[in-house]
Amino acid sequence: MISTAEAISLISDSTRPLEAVTTALSKSLGCITTEDVTAKIDLPPFDQSAMDGYAICLGGEDTYSVIGEIQAGDDASEFSLSKGEAVKIFTGAMVPKTADLVCRIEDIVEKGNVISVTKTPTKGANIRWQGEQIKKGETSILKGGKVNPATIGFLANLGIKDLSVVRKPIISIISTGNELISPDELNTLPEGKIFESNSVMLSSALHSLGYESRHSRHLQDDYNEVCKGLKKALHESDVLIISGGISVGDYDFVGKGLQENGVKQVFYKVNQKPGKPLFFGTKGNKLVFALPGNPAAALTCFYIYVLPALNKLSGQGFIGLPKSTSTLTTSLTKSNSREQFLKAYDDNNGTVKILEGQSSAMLKSFAEANALIHLPSHSTPQEGETVEVIKLS
Amino acid sequence: MISTAEAISLISDSTRPLEAVTTALSKSLGCITTEDVTAKIDLPPFDQSAMDGYAICLGGEDTYSVIGEIQAGDDASEFSLSKGEAVKIFTGAMVPKTADLVCRIEDIVEKGNVISVTKTPTKGANIRWQGEQIKKGETSILKGGKVNPATIGFLANLGIKDLSVVRKPIISIISTGNELISPDELNTLPEGKIFESNSVMLSSALHSLGYESRHSRHLQDDYNEVCKGLKKALHESDVLIISGGISVGDYDFVGKGLQENGVKQVFYKVNQKPGKPLFFGTKGNKLVFALPGNPAAALTCFYIYVLPALNKLSGQGFIGLPKSTSTLTTSLTKSNSREQFLKAYDDNNGTVKILEGQSSAMLKSFAEANALIHLPSHSTPQEGETVEVIKLS
Repeated sequence: MISTAEAISLISDSTRPLEAVTTALSKSLGCITTEDVTAKIDLPPFDQSAMDGYAICLGGEDTYSVIGEIQAGDDASEFSLSKGEAVKIFTGAMVPKTADLVCRIEDIVEKGNVISVTKTPTKGANIRWQGEQIKKGETSILKGGKVNPATIGFLANLGIKDLSVVRKPIISIISTGNELISPDELNTLPEGKIFESNSVMLSSALHSLGYESRHSRHLQDDYNEVCKGLKKALHESDVLIISGGISVGDYDFVGKGLQENGVKQVFYKVNQKPGKPLFFGTKGNKLVFALPGNPAAALTCFYIYVLPALNKLSGQGFIGLPKSTSTLTTSLTKSNSREQFLKAYDDNNGTVKILEGQSSAMLKSFAEANALIHLPSHSTPQEGETVEVIKLS
Repeated sequence: MISTAEAISLISDSTRPLEAVTTALSKSLGCITTEDVTAKIDLPPFDQSAMDGYAICLGGEDTYSVIGEIQAGDDASEFSLSKGEAVKIFTGAMVPKTADLVCRIEDIVEKGNVISVTKTPTKGANIRWQGEQIKKGETSILKGGKVNPATIGFLANLGIKDLSVVRKPIISIISTGNELISPDELNTLPEGKIFESNSVMLSSALHSLGYESRHSRHLQDDYNEVCKGLKKALHESDVLIISGGISVGDYDFVGKGLQENGVKQVFYKVNQKPGKPLFFGTKGNKLVFALPGNPAAALTCFYIYVLPALNKLSGQGFIGLPKSTSTLTTSLTKSNSREQFLKAYDDNNGTVKILEGQSSAMLKSFAEANALIHLPSHSTPQEGETVEVIKLS
């Protein structure tokens, strides 16, 4: 059985960033840009008043005749001031080329059409010069950056509406198993059935990390249905996240169905707890993760393996949740021959507690956890020891 | 002028959590629960096989006659095993009450209808007992918790479809100013105009933090238009985020329009850079933030003041972005009488660099920043000194 590090390295090696697409700027949050973006205008596009006040053409005196008013949005390109003249101006408005500076309204005494300046600032004061943030033809945003709200504001300010970014993966979630009933389907559980929870859990996890599942479907344990469902999902998706169905059982048709559909196994089973029966395969550049059916195991594998692959597909590195180290406040009594991911609560102040209920079926402790502790195989760390912590929130 | 700490305390004191609403479980991610949630079923709902193998009724011998098969999803409640009998069983399937344990398929030799057990596990092995995760009537989720993907999975597993949570605020974004042109409206900028960027920037910032703006509108500098627009927005929203328009200028009608609509000013102006002309007011439980028009100032005020208020409205504490401390790799040469929020790049390894381009109009540096450094007034921290850092991503 391979180690978690080997599994990570095999997945990363199989994952190539998707192609570039043009997207609306407003939809590009979190995407990686694929081109340097050139400014098509100066920013500011004109000399702009930074204050409410008066734009004046210096004339040697402290009094100026007011010859007009320029509001924000007005075209003042033809406006001309002679020495000793002033124009009332507002924040964001165009400063005439003939003005030397802007006096703040607070430093002015108004008397009819004449103003006295009580405090003349230096030449050029209170003006945001045309192109001082960026000039037409300069690079505004370098390729390879992640689009954040400020990027969007900056590019919108430059009049840019579309952006070339790495496409985000199309993701299908597939749950399998005759025992699963959707809570939307029936209120009362028939004997032998359980309510299906992995698909809504995984789509929530995707959403919380900036991804969306495009398709979500349930397949019964029937070879033809599984084959057909997988074929369709492979056709329409970049990534399949399957939960349940890979094992040696006579009615686990996922492995056979994937083989039938040309998916090449990269690995099956990882020396970890929970999540040992993890399958990873590829078909061309498409990635297939068959996660264990147990909810806590499925979610753990999602965070450790699926998330960094989605990030790499999207043009980032093979980057998962943030990691740090914390000091254990509890001791582990039993070692395990497998690496372990333990549901834990980190106080974000240097200490971390192992939660009760570590079974791979149990989500209760996962809901209370804000971290996973990653332990090497055969380790029994004691209170006070430092452990690796993966932050969930 | 008040300090940033006073502004924060005034906003927090004016903010009350919104009422409880019932929401679909699949839409509840990030919400705060308002009730303890009681399990209406046992989990697992029946004794469940944890393995593919054979459920056996111990009989003193190592061979068992196989009397049938139970698949996952089958109703095995009437299935009865006598001593020395076994039934083939699959992971997730119901274990008959008369079975003592489940043997893994790997520890079995099959010969027609008889199996030999090569390694008999202890009584109860490989069975997940009915109710071992949670019993009907027990509390599954405590009120006051934040719904994460594992919570959603856990509650879905319990068959819960709806959840009582604190309602998330309805947010309106309003931009004002005759100088603003939407990039969707015109490709070429008329003289004196600039492309509007704050609304798409703020709605992206909201989205990245789990909120959505319900309404986004632009108001021209016209008293009647501003009054009418603010009235509509106050009617349909819990929170107004206005950018631009609060100042002493003759054409800045936002202040007057808010007063006309019964908004009570809590404060106007904070001793900070950028973002001095920040206005905060209330009308009943509705919150009104008039952010500065300068994009970098608007975004800074959003993160520092608006975000924690949205979190408190949503039932969390008055919690903003995570804070930490880092060591400066550059020195500040000029002090300021105001507190400062400087765009910065934190290497997440203990050091932080002040970026170039700190003007309140400049978004370029904000797009490159992953942190804001918060400096007290009159401070000039030098290379090697520790500063407070607010993490943007």
